[in-house]
Amino acid sequence: MLTAFVLINTLPNYIGNVAQEIANIPNVSEVYSITGEHDLIAIIRLENHDQLDDAIPGQLAKIQGIQRTNTVIAFRRYSAKDLESAWDIGVS
Amino acid sequence: MLTAFVLINTLPNYIGNVAQEIANIPNVSEVYSITGEHDLIAIIRLENHDQLDDAIPGQLAKIQGIQRTNTVIAFRRYSAKDLESAWDIGVS
Amino acid sequence: MLTAFVLINTLPNYIGNVAQEIANIPNVSEVYSITGEHDLIAIIRLENHDQLDDAIPGQLAKIQGIQRTNTVIAFRRYSAKDLESAWDIGVS
Amino acid sequence: MLTAFVLINTLPNYIGNVAQEIANIPNVSEVYSITGEHDLIAIIRLENHDQLDDAIPGQLAKIQGIQRTNTVIAFRRYSAKDLESAWDIGVS
Amino acid sequence: MLTAFVLINTLPNYIGNVAQEIANIPNVSEVYSITGEHDLIAIIRLENHDQLDDAIPGQLAKIQGIQRTNTVIAFRRYSAKDLESAWDIGVS
Amino acid sequence: MLTAFVLINTLPNYIGNVAQEIANIPNVSEVYSITGEHDLIAIIRLENHDQLDDAIPGQLAKIQGIQRTNTVIAFRRYSAKDLESAWDIGVS
Amino acid sequence: MLTAFVLINTLPNYIGNVAQEIANIPNVSEVYSITGEHDLIAIIRLENHDQLDDAIPGQLAKIQGIQRTNTVIAFRRYSAKDLESAWDIGVS
Amino acid sequence: MLTAFVLINTLPNYIGNVAQEIANIPNVSEVYSITGEHDLIAIIRLENHDQLDDAIPGQLAKIQGIQRTNTVIAFRRYSAKDLESAWDIGVS
Amino acid sequence: MLTAFVLINTLPNYIGNVAQEIANIPNVSEVYSITGEHDLIAIIRLENHDQLDDAIPGQLAKIQGIQRTNTVIAFRRYSAKDLESAWDIGVS
Amino acid sequence: MLTAFVLINTLPNYIGNVAQEIANIPNVSEVYSITGEHDLIAIIRLENHDQLDDAIPGQLAKIQGIQRTNTVIAFRRYSAKDLESAWDIGVS
Repeated sequence: MLTAFVLINTLPNYIGNVAQEIANIPNVSEVYSITGEHDLIAIIRLENHDQLDDAIPGQLAKIQGIQRTNTVIAFRRYSAKDLESAWDIGVS
Repeated sequence: MLTAFVLINTLPNYIGNVAQEIANIPNVSEVYSITGEHDLIAIIRLENHDQLDDAIPGQLAKIQGIQRTNTVIAFRRYSAKDLESAWDIGVS
Repeated sequence: MLTAFVLINTLPNYIGNVAQEIANIPNVSEVYSITGEHDLIAIIRLENHDQLDDAIPGQLAKIQGIQRTNTVIAFRRYSAKDLESAWDIGVS
Repeated sequence: MLTAFVLINTLPNYIGNVAQEIANIPNVSEVYSITGEHDLIAIIRLENHDQLDDAIPGQLAKIQGIQRTNTVIAFRRYSAKDLESAWDIGVS
Repeated sequence: MLTAFVLINTLPNYIGNVAQEIANIPNVSEVYSITGEHDLIAIIRLENHDQLDDAIPGQLAKIQGIQRTNTVIAFRRYSAKDLESAWDIGVS
Repeated sequence: MLTAFVLINTLPNYIGNVAQEIANIPNVSEVYSITGEHDLIAIIRLENHDQLDDAIPGQLAKIQGIQRTNTVIAFRRYSAKDLESAWDIGVS
Repeated sequence: MLTAFVLINTLPNYIGNVAQEIANIPNVSEVYSITGEHDLIAIIRLENHDQLDDAIPGQLAKIQGIQRTNTVIAFRRYSAKDLESAWDIGVS
Repeated sequence: MLTAFVLINTLPNYIGNVAQEIANIPNVSEVYSITGEHDLIAIIRLENHDQLDDAIPGQLAKIQGIQRTNTVIAFRRYSAKDLESAWDIGVS
Repeated sequence: MLTAFVLINTLPNYIGNVAQEIANIPNVSEVYSITGEHDLIAIIRLENHDQLDDAIPGQLAKIQGIQRTNTVIAFRRYSAKDLESAWDIGVS
Repeated sequence: MLTAFVLINTLPNYIGNVAQEIANIPNVSEVYSITGEHDLIAIIRLENHDQLDDAIPGQLAKIQGIQRTNTVIAFRRYSAKDLESAWDIGVS
């Protein structure tokens, strides 16, 4: 499972409409309007890397009202239960 | 339920250790090492706004090896099922 | 009580008109034209987090003449009277 | 009455202590830990412009643990009651 | 006496015309075309803080051809003759 | 006569001392502590271009407590009295 | 096959040594010293996404002399031979 | 052999079409849609420096839909096999 | 003799034409298309400071297709032959 | 002949010494202390691309007191005499 975060800027009065359209793209698991320099964050969860191009430049980035997207991809998820073993096997 | 995203920069060789410590803070639901200008993203889910100060400046920002944090808070979550009704009631 | 600060850039000759319209949004307690890279700052005080989306992306960001908004939310307010007790209970 | 906003970055584990010290500077009316790229915002209200230098570079900026300050000063406050008359007299 | 510096960006072929119009605003004491990322700097000298809003967002920022303004206000002027006494009374 | 503006960042608790030392450099006509991302602005007025290197990298930039300087030089000063003739001779 | 580009800043006199160490990390196919704001670019080619965390935060980012890394990951490779068919099937 | 990397921003819905056109420019060896603040990266390999101007400002930068390009040129390629000898001859 | 460097951004498909027009401005000694975030650099050599305003805001910045200019002016030229004497007379 | 421009930031009181050392590197044709966000610019002229790595990361970037370098390389030089023929052969 691969997790991507897309930070999105829209035209000022398109925030809600763009968010709704993104929420309906397959594999988009969460979309939020947010504080800070970006307007929206979308979380996309995919089975494999090859689906990224279709989901982000292929669908999300083409929604009307979007000005700029910046995608961040997770290398690895860290879980609370890993802590003890982490020290044992020297993960850092 | 309130969702916060914390973008984190660490000293270059502390990425893994900081991630493990964050994963064990209560209310941190996900932590990932990531591509781009930041090193880690943490997702924090809280019952109410008053818990933010303890979780982020109070605990997360004090972990050894962190250089800078930038917190983004969700205003609202958009769901796929909202789309049809959105057009009906004029949400934008 | 939750406090949000919205930093706003407008088209150069819309500063005054945008400021007046913001001042009339419910829950906006103060609006100022300011020095520096932004044109206006608005202070919004709300009973709870759920009102943020309606006040900021829902109303403020849609005012004509606004080019960009950047919202900052307070985690916690520090008061002068907290100082002595802070050292007692180890708040930092 | 003059209003100034000071955006402050601190060393990561000094946020709370710096906030407490700022809260005790005379003329500081509010101090908050905040989301975004800065750690704290302080609101200073003064009778006249000549008090700014003593309050900000003179006192606030010298608190231990502060890395950088960026002061923003209000030109003018806009009030909700101004709206109707604004259109009459051509304020923009 | 209060001193403000306004850093101005104009459309590329409006530099000279904007500079001339600024030079004729009351209280503008100096205007220069400049090197670096901004096109013009204007120095405004005023009797009191209340005149800033009329001079800068009210007049200067509305000149045709201006794209962006960034105002910087002086806290305090330091003079050569202050040096000796500074050390005596501990000014820093 | 040549006019240069030097924007200066200092260590947080050196603002006043650096300002005093700058005020005593020959040809420095004004020094101010300021709002915004820089701490100080110095105005230097010189007879000719050859004096700049000695005044700025040679003296000013070496003062203890300075972290960074950014010099801006005036191309030309615009005066209020130029306006009418400007339109006549097509200055722009 | 997955392609990642790592943009790297080093301490000024470590450029060559860091480049040599990166060149010996498995799966690093190319390393170059470069013009512009970064010092080095490394191209990493991997069989699958799960190997990224070990290669970049796990090995590359820990090399002595590195100050900052910024990883960019390819969504999809475009080939010259795709052009004609692209128009046929409406790829955009 | 000279290697250049071109980082490209396009209008949001032109990413795919611009990528395809770049892939067909002679000497372009690879083109990818990418994560992060840019939309595309192109790798160009040339026999000599004189071919750069024709390939990049002459052809690539003129493709419809491109907003901005930033070219980075390799000084030198480091290879895994260089390591042992590097220490011998003092390359750094 | 005074040396100025002008860093220029143009509309993407105007790079060559703008460069040619700049090359024909009197006192422009060199013009190059370049790598990095700017498109062109022009080197201007003048007898005295008063000629800068006419050459740069007066002529160069008005060429069609230019979006932004950033001028950098030399304080002093350092020559290889200065080295030995530099240490003797304490130049730094 | 290949032309490179190196923009350099030094520790504040090393500007002159670094400039002198750069002036003595072979192939450095000009070095200037400058206005703006960088401290020095060096112009390097080389017979071929392969000499760049030795001159810049190999020698210049290792001088004591340098904090950061950003190299810009010329694609092509435009000459005044090119103008007429440019229009004939469609150079743009």
